[in-house]
Amino acid sequence: MALALALAAKGMYTTTPNPRVGCVIVRDGEVIGAGHTQPAGQAHAEIMAMRDAKERGHDVRGATAYVTLEPCNHHGRTPPCSDALVREGLGRVVAAIADPNPLVAGQGMAKLAAAGIAVSAGLLADQAYEMNIGFFSRMQRKRPWVRMKAAASLDGMTALHSGESQWITGPEARADGHAWRARACAILTGIGTVKADDPQLNVRAVDTPRQPRRIVVDSKLDIGLDAKVLAGGGTWIVAAVGNPDKEAALAAAGNEVILLPNAAGKVDLPALMLELGRREINELHVEAGSKLNGSLVREGCVDELLVYIAPCLIGDAQGMFALQAPERLDAKITLKFHEVRQVGDDLRILARFTPQQD
Amino acid sequence: MALALALAAKGMYTTTPNPRVGCVIVRDGEVIGAGHTQPAGQAHAEIMAMRDAKERGHDVRGATAYVTLEPCNHHGRTPPCSDALVREGLGRVVAAIADPNPLVAGQGMAKLAAAGIAVSAGLLADQAYEMNIGFFSRMQRKRPWVRMKAAASLDGMTALHSGESQWITGPEARADGHAWRARACAILTGIGTVKADDPQLNVRAVDTPRQPRRIVVDSKLDIGLDAKVLAGGGTWIVAAVGNPDKEAALAAAGNEVILLPNAAGKVDLPALMLELGRREINELHVEAGSKLNGSLVREGCVDELLVYIAPCLIGDAQGMFALQAPERLDAKITLKFHEVRQVGDDLRILARFTPQQD
Repeated sequence: MALALALAAKGMYTTTPNPRVGCVIVRDGEVIGAGHTQPAGQAHAEIMAMRDAKERGHDVRGATAYVTLEPCNHHGRTPPCSDALVREGLGRVVAAIADPNPLVAGQGMAKLAAAGIAVSAGLLADQAYEMNIGFFSRMQRKRPWVRMKAAASLDGMTALHSGESQWITGPEARADGHAWRARACAILTGIGTVKADDPQLNVRAVDTPRQPRRIVVDSKLDIGLDAKVLAGGGTWIVAAVGNPDKEAALAAAGNEVILLPNAAGKVDLPALMLELGRREINELHVEAGSKLNGSLVREGCVDELLVYIAPCLIGDAQGMFALQAPERLDAKITLKFHEVRQVGDDLRILARFTPQQD
Repeated sequence: MALALALAAKGMYTTTPNPRVGCVIVRDGEVIGAGHTQPAGQAHAEIMAMRDAKERGHDVRGATAYVTLEPCNHHGRTPPCSDALVREGLGRVVAAIADPNPLVAGQGMAKLAAAGIAVSAGLLADQAYEMNIGFFSRMQRKRPWVRMKAAASLDGMTALHSGESQWITGPEARADGHAWRARACAILTGIGTVKADDPQLNVRAVDTPRQPRRIVVDSKLDIGLDAKVLAGGGTWIVAAVGNPDKEAALAAAGNEVILLPNAAGKVDLPALMLELGRREINELHVEAGSKLNGSLVREGCVDELLVYIAPCLIGDAQGMFALQAPERLDAKITLKFHEVRQVGDDLRILARFTPQQD
């Protein structure tokens, strides 16, 4: 199963919106076939592994398939994998974790069992869940797994009040940040960052055949048509007020305006998360300024912080999140450290939000 | 030598102002004696180890002594250990690191070699240095190793603007903080913290037979005679302006006022560090508010930050260090992460200041 998970990771940048799945077929302790999910619309891991076994001259009848996610049982862009496993006569299927897709949710395993295949699940389930945390989120909560990236000094500062913010962290941390961008379905920023830094918002420091969708939160539809984030089209601009001329100009360049106002005339961020779930965004990577960061945190839209801490002190400057402090400390926003490691000279902290106590 | 270092650690809270030293005597691969430095004025590690060997019925003649610091060669509170090693006829002495004390500095090893004892040094030198980093600092730089402790949220906040600051970190981090207090020769705070929190500034969460010296930076000699930090006497109050009545009252309660004004009428902090070196303070543990923290950092008095980061966000509140940001980011204050570990639910970061680039 560990090998199957390593294979699944090969699809980290490409399978979206499908989950990353790996499959290893074993007979008498020997691996006779292996594969991982191809880009959406192409073959799933199980099919790839059976194909691989055949190409290597092996018969899969009676063999055991280790698969990192329960085989699908529905007709999506491809036919159900469970049917293929039955047809090919596999003897046993071990899944790391059940598929959270309500169209599958145990039915894949049930169909296999009904066909006389021995089934079991739960092996390395935690790792299989982490691998597809965004897919699980979208299937179970109807919204993406939202990961907010920030880089700060040890005293929590991201930029000078003048706006200068480049190069707080080192090259290893910046490359690592691009790997996290690459695995996301989409990268989201705010109009403030677009105006201040004019970012491309794409993946550069790591190789990927797929670029994530770019999304800009821009309540007043202020974005300039020459913003780099619009280059090549495909960018979603989320606004609270319409502007037919601007919308038409953006559409003509291949971009799309999504109108999602809330009562205060700003973008309705929780509604945006549901809309992004509907649009098949599994993992959403946020790189924004302190204002949008603060709003997203305050409105409960963020699942995880990815914070790079550089070994320096900046002093009185711009923090990571524009958040009003609570009246009392016991009302602070709580998280749990999920993973901490050194990346180059910097620290990388993954922290997940925990349910608020009332 | 690893065993000798473990023995040295037994003196972590007690040997000050002497270094923590461990000694293991080995013959034919068997440990025949072991010891560590006792409180100042009592026996050093080498003497304890030879005594232990005799009590266990072993002859130390020709045996090898592993000692975590070069044996002393001067008459301090006790006679030189090098003489005792020669007198008892040890065959070989392996030291982890040379003694930085200018009164020793290689002469201990030289005397042993002159007496026909095989000598070598450098085994696990880094660990031996870390064990006595304050002693090395005082011997080599005439000032203590200054470790500044702070506890903050992931967004770098230590307290609300209202002053509320208790319990940001968990019980494990607080106990760990007391272990760092216990190994210091002295704990330093500022009058702001004394007025706001009235701390005892002693070691409570870990067992120690010795309490560190308490020091309060109090430019205007504002401290109230009922402040808890004065309880039992022995506290040093560092001021910039004298006040004979107050000084007399403080002295009557067993405390001492040290006058060290700078040109601005504040306490001269760099001069204070030299004065504390003169007073045999090896490791100075600072737990102060953001104002004094900022001054100490700005004036180059701090060697190491000991920062506990709690998994929470507080928002706009009080930071760890009152520091003005530089004009440009490349003038930021740089450090190097020395060690990071999880303590309870919190992170503990040890970061050391690096030389400033001009």
